[in-house]
Amino acid sequence: MKEEPSSEVTVNEPAPRLRSEMSSSTPDRVVVRGFDLTNDLMGKINLGDMAFLELTGRLPTEGESVIFNAMLVSLVEHGITPNTIAARLTYLGAPEALQGAVAAGLLGLGSVFVGTIEGAARVLQEALPAGSNSQDLPSLAERIVREHRGRRTPVPGLGHPIHKPVDPRSMRLFALGDKHGISGPYVALMQLIAEEAERQTGRTLPLNVTGAIGAFASELGIPWQVCRGLGIMARSIGLVGHLLEEIRQPMANEIWRWVEESSGP
Amino acid sequence: MKEEPSSEVTVNEPAPRLRSEMSSSTPDRVVVRGFDLTNDLMGKINLGDMAFLELTGRLPTEGESVIFNAMLVSLVEHGITPNTIAARLTYLGAPEALQGAVAAGLLGLGSVFVGTIEGAARVLQEALPAGSNSQDLPSLAERIVREHRGRRTPVPGLGHPIHKPVDPRSMRLFALGDKHGISGPYVALMQLIAEEAERQTGRTLPLNVTGAIGAFASELGIPWQVCRGLGIMARSIGLVGHLLEEIRQPMANEIWRWVEESSGP
Amino acid sequence: MKEEPSSEVTVNEPAPRLRSEMSSSTPDRVVVRGFDLTNDLMGKINLGDMAFLELTGRLPTEGESVIFNAMLVSLVEHGITPNTIAARLTYLGAPEALQGAVAAGLLGLGSVFVGTIEGAARVLQEALPAGSNSQDLPSLAERIVREHRGRRTPVPGLGHPIHKPVDPRSMRLFALGDKHGISGPYVALMQLIAEEAERQTGRTLPLNVTGAIGAFASELGIPWQVCRGLGIMARSIGLVGHLLEEIRQPMANEIWRWVEESSGP
Amino acid sequence: MKEEPSSEVTVNEPAPRLRSEMSSSTPDRVVVRGFDLTNDLMGKINLGDMAFLELTGRLPTEGESVIFNAMLVSLVEHGITPNTIAARLTYLGAPEALQGAVAAGLLGLGSVFVGTIEGAARVLQEALPAGSNSQDLPSLAERIVREHRGRRTPVPGLGHPIHKPVDPRSMRLFALGDKHGISGPYVALMQLIAEEAERQTGRTLPLNVTGAIGAFASELGIPWQVCRGLGIMARSIGLVGHLLEEIRQPMANEIWRWVEESSGP
Repeated sequence: MKEEPSSEVTVNEPAPRLRSEMSSSTPDRVVVRGFDLTNDLMGKINLGDMAFLELTGRLPTEGESVIFNAMLVSLVEHGITPNTIAARLTYLGAPEALQGAVAAGLLGLGSVFVGTIEGAARVLQEALPAGSNSQDLPSLAERIVREHRGRRTPVPGLGHPIHKPVDPRSMRLFALGDKHGISGPYVALMQLIAEEAERQTGRTLPLNVTGAIGAFASELGIPWQVCRGLGIMARSIGLVGHLLEEIRQPMANEIWRWVEESSGP
Repeated sequence: MKEEPSSEVTVNEPAPRLRSEMSSSTPDRVVVRGFDLTNDLMGKINLGDMAFLELTGRLPTEGESVIFNAMLVSLVEHGITPNTIAARLTYLGAPEALQGAVAAGLLGLGSVFVGTIEGAARVLQEALPAGSNSQDLPSLAERIVREHRGRRTPVPGLGHPIHKPVDPRSMRLFALGDKHGISGPYVALMQLIAEEAERQTGRTLPLNVTGAIGAFASELGIPWQVCRGLGIMARSIGLVGHLLEEIRQPMANEIWRWVEESSGP
Repeated sequence: MKEEPSSEVTVNEPAPRLRSEMSSSTPDRVVVRGFDLTNDLMGKINLGDMAFLELTGRLPTEGESVIFNAMLVSLVEHGITPNTIAARLTYLGAPEALQGAVAAGLLGLGSVFVGTIEGAARVLQEALPAGSNSQDLPSLAERIVREHRGRRTPVPGLGHPIHKPVDPRSMRLFALGDKHGISGPYVALMQLIAEEAERQTGRTLPLNVTGAIGAFASELGIPWQVCRGLGIMARSIGLVGHLLEEIRQPMANEIWRWVEESSGP
Repeated sequence: MKEEPSSEVTVNEPAPRLRSEMSSSTPDRVVVRGFDLTNDLMGKINLGDMAFLELTGRLPTEGESVIFNAMLVSLVEHGITPNTIAARLTYLGAPEALQGAVAAGLLGLGSVFVGTIEGAARVLQEALPAGSNSQDLPSLAERIVREHRGRRTPVPGLGHPIHKPVDPRSMRLFALGDKHGISGPYVALMQLIAEEAERQTGRTLPLNVTGAIGAFASELGIPWQVCRGLGIMARSIGLVGHLLEEIRQPMANEIWRWVEESSGP
């Protein structure tokens, strides 16, 4: 695997009107983020590494690859959710347009279900801007929790309807983060926030997987504005899986009938 | 990595009204397709393997993992396409809804751009139904090409506006397929179809990456009806990458201005 | 009201690179399809007339306005359908993005539910191309039905699971069409096709509202390729209505719970 | 035309599990919001009136019909916008799925382009809750503008890049509102807010059409949470119009080529 991207600099040409460094092609070569797709990437890196390259412009270290793949793997499949039901119902009316069914499923990934990945990452990245000196993390955590409580806003990334008192998926990510030396100030701060929130509210508030992912995304330098995209790219895989199951053992028509029969003025 | 899925059979309960084997959760355990997410999958398999599990219900062998990841990696990033432009333009109007911008990009993955993965897989799977005995592949190829020409329909998976006389991405997949013993009758048939098409038409018709992917998807047992989903899941990653670039060095507003100024009665 | 559109011709300027006649604006004037939006359209025409203008480039006659509005009115609200359920489920996850919930609902308007408007219009428009001389309609009808039966394909626009032996909505459109002198060869042909289909199959096959709409759309000169758009534009209204009801008396969470509890391996 | 809806009350049946009053069907009758679709609505009301019925549960008075139709008519067609470009680019890849192209166009109707209809309605409805006694409107306007300036947030519904110093579409709506007696406290407050904003900032800030629509939507009792839906339902019509133009004189491929050629690292 080549670490150095091949240079795409052209000499003596005017700067392009629209700047993009994502990809370019010639008859016998495809370049993606400076890497030769065919020789450097295909058969050399996995899909998670490719997502890492797309978001960061570089290939992950071994430890980063393990963590990043684990983060995405945990977001792929969440069983029967509003998203997978919506996708199946859409497929019922337009089986010739699989992309529409997947898109319909993705459109429900807003503030309620994946917003907390983004929310947690935002809290952490605004508290510890890139390049900021080391901070008094416990004080930061105390302030963050207090401010959220003052605004009557839940701290994103905490709590879960099923996984209590701990979220096993977060535990796994933290173990991997420690093992591979990825855990840093963002992870530490998120954990302090979780402890502080339980202390201030007296409630059980497990650091759930979206909070853990928000923390690790921050460690990996992924801006909070696209952290929701981690859930989107992973869930697109899960939705295709559900649609294949729908093709083989459909439930959408049954769901429609039940809802219709159960509804009225 | 555990190969045997843990059993989810419940005893003496009525069959569920809606059948789904995708996932279930308890407070301390998440099961996906029979595997323990936290202990069997996170940190053990990569995102491509997870997609394989979603589509086939089993984990890939080492060779299958290499090929399947390579297939998906080749579909993630295709530079400035109608899809990435549409996603950027959508983000311009709704930056608070990243899922809408990704969805808008995916909605253009229809018959024109990813339909050939599905089309090639369909041709191959209808010619060689699962479990069929060995066939006279050259004769099959000849018939398939002749029938398409008779219907004035291009054979899906052949030809490319840029990559000629061969598509380097297909070449790479075939090399990996041979190396890992994945190539079989579907790959052989697709290659024979490509040769036959060039012979019958006298034109250069490289077996492009969508045809190669259709062939390998068939080797891996992925039904043609969801092969388009391979392009969808991969492209969702590329779209998030483009949207991050758009946030940092936007082009959408410039595109809008140019189109508006350039258009009129 | 038919008026002459104000001319937008510019003199001595090069032709625009991208041709579009939809709309243009100056500080004190907005022109849509040649008409002054503020003075000619707002407060003068209704929304259905505006849709007619968008699709045909002219304002409808009084009779055309009545029929076209009736066609669209009949397509707005169909109760609890897969589309409205999908929209509600999407809203559950992304209430801050109403456009996503509406879009999710529209994505299910494919071949199964609105494809028959397009299908019926296509059959009629291919049988009677614009400007063709009068034809032997009964023979055309016989041939069309026979060809569909030979391909084992249902004739689009016939049959209905609920409305038998006639669809009251079609009856109403035909009455309006006769009253306003809009009914012509396309309507006549569609009715002959319906009679012929019942004759050839021996089954009750009411000419349903999508077949009637396909016929009238053809009378009005709307190409079959956008007839599906009539269902899309109307249903977008119905979806917003359902989403307002969902805000006030939600059902989506209840649906999700029922589906989740009812599903399993 | 206001009529009494036919009663749908059923006697002695358990309440439905999911409440919905949108529509129901029997073999010979379709009921929408209590009205008989075929006899009361088709051929009797226009599409704008149907949208009014969907959102309010009643038919509009004559004046309400004029205003509501004018509001929606003004939102249908805005020429070459990011939305119409995105829709055309999506159609390029999936011409067999018109619903996807329309959906892609709608997904860009977020905070930037239609958010101000919702924003203006929200400001007005939160300032004057339904049923509130008459208020000191000038003081309210002064407070609202001051609070927005303090938060460094623009007041929604004011300003326009092209239409200055007044937006002719707003002027038209106000004239219609006065003529038909629809203008009331919300309209008065919005106008006071506009004047106050110009006074406090010293800048020209025309009350644009989204602010005017937000005000009239409030007069008509449409909750701010679905006001964005007015833009969505109207724009779905405009998008179908643009897609028909794209079919006849396409620009999407040309746009793609220009963007691709104009972009680079």
